[in-house]
Amino acid sequence: MMLDTSKNILIVGLGLIGGSYAKALRKLGFKISAITLNQEDIDYAIENGIIDEGFTEPLPEVLEKAELVVFALYPKVFVEWIEKYQKFLKPGALLTDVTGVKASVVYKIQEMLRPDVEFIAAHPMAGKEVYGVQNSDPKIFHGANYIVTPTEKNSDSAIKDCLELGRLMGFNNVSILSPEKHDEMIGFVSQLTHCIAVSLMNCYDGEKLQDYTGDSFRDLTRIARINDEMWSELFLLNKETLLDQMDKFLAEFEKLRKTLETGDRETMREMMKVSTARRALFDKK
Amino acid sequence: MMLDTSKNILIVGLGLIGGSYAKALRKLGFKISAITLNQEDIDYAIENGIIDEGFTEPLPEVLEKAELVVFALYPKVFVEWIEKYQKFLKPGALLTDVTGVKASVVYKIQEMLRPDVEFIAAHPMAGKEVYGVQNSDPKIFHGANYIVTPTEKNSDSAIKDCLELGRLMGFNNVSILSPEKHDEMIGFVSQLTHCIAVSLMNCYDGEKLQDYTGDSFRDLTRIARINDEMWSELFLLNKETLLDQMDKFLAEFEKLRKTLETGDRETMREMMKVSTARRALFDKK
Repeated sequence: MMLDTSKNILIVGLGLIGGSYAKALRKLGFKISAITLNQEDIDYAIENGIIDEGFTEPLPEVLEKAELVVFALYPKVFVEWIEKYQKFLKPGALLTDVTGVKASVVYKIQEMLRPDVEFIAAHPMAGKEVYGVQNSDPKIFHGANYIVTPTEKNSDSAIKDCLELGRLMGFNNVSILSPEKHDEMIGFVSQLTHCIAVSLMNCYDGEKLQDYTGDSFRDLTRIARINDEMWSELFLLNKETLLDQMDKFLAEFEKLRKTLETGDRETMREMMKVSTARRALFDKK
Repeated sequence: MMLDTSKNILIVGLGLIGGSYAKALRKLGFKISAITLNQEDIDYAIENGIIDEGFTEPLPEVLEKAELVVFALYPKVFVEWIEKYQKFLKPGALLTDVTGVKASVVYKIQEMLRPDVEFIAAHPMAGKEVYGVQNSDPKIFHGANYIVTPTEKNSDSAIKDCLELGRLMGFNNVSILSPEKHDEMIGFVSQLTHCIAVSLMNCYDGEKLQDYTGDSFRDLTRIARINDEMWSELFLLNKETLLDQMDKFLAEFEKLRKTLETGDRETMREMMKVSTARRALFDKK
């Protein structure tokens, strides 16, 4: 269908990720419009050549010309936006998103959507501990994973276009997962790790530990700086899967604790050997 | 007492840390001898200008001339070494170490030690996921913490020399803690984090997760590559403290799990805000 540079791309939500999409795509020659809440973000983006035009309202005349719309919103705001404004979308438009949870969002959107537009979900697994279009940078996509999560309702051409979008923006690894498999994976590699980092920082006991931390503690808690509004929403939207992952982690952690309590050095070493062998796979890539 | 370059330094245990000490100190002009198990490590170290001379046995004539002896051994091997060979040490020699746990080692050594030599304990909080003198590199000390853990038995001059040793080798932050405070701190910032990383890799379920991991998972599990022989010994030598730290972490993790299970978004966000604020302190430094 598209992805030639004659097409109009609209970014809804010009934050860190929306802004990084805009930068990556405009550099490729696409015309980029944006809708976002704050005029100052639009002013910044125009002054810095990130977008061609921007609006603080979802104006019908802007929506009517967009052939690809990227939603870079929090999940619930995204669903509400579709409810309210989908009527203004251009027939034949392709919609995609950047939402960090899928099963709880994708089916809901696809169910309510007009039959003459298509929503193909994607998750760019990239981010920073800072926010806003001012910090946007398409380099965060390099070396990162981009996952398309199609359902039965998606056309082959939309899936193809969405994969191509990820490749064009410079993602290192572009792949397909079902919404459920995506949520399971993200529950483990991202949400669970954030739960761990948050819990670890919450048991910090008020002493000046930062004077004594090595790299391991810094690395492990880097993600403890967390956007609580966004992440609490993402956690709750992936509740059952994340609870399951947390329980699996708890079981292993308690098993390790038991080896220490009982002095079972052999089982302790066995767990360390397993972790060493599994982690080594990551560094081979 | 010392730390002028006329003094003979002996490194016992020429691995990653022992080798890095040797490199740092020889570059400053000290004469460096080493005792280590394998002749090939000695050959490598001599060929690469890391040491002046090396021996696979604790020869009396080598021990008798060493004015500063650095023990870079596993804790139990260190204690056994002192039992067997302290009789050959030069009167007035200063001994120090690099052991990662303190209370279970320092008092034991000081109690059994000859009265005419002094042991001042230190912990260079630096490391890599690779081992051996072949990987040694004093750059790992830059930006790292070096902690001296004196007891009542230590002289002011030994404490001063030991602090100076850390500074000379390029440690960023050189400080003093009691053995008990050290173990509490290291239990939290290092051992607990390794327990978490090991547990997390042990719940990895066999799928090709490495295809989907973002930086957060990589950062969090980097330390899951662990020398099981060394770390199991260190964990068990700091058992009560580490169990206590593990329980504190478990309590916070279970609290967070509860907020997810019950949909208590406010408490969840509160925990995230606490972690964000505390972690931010680390990045200010």
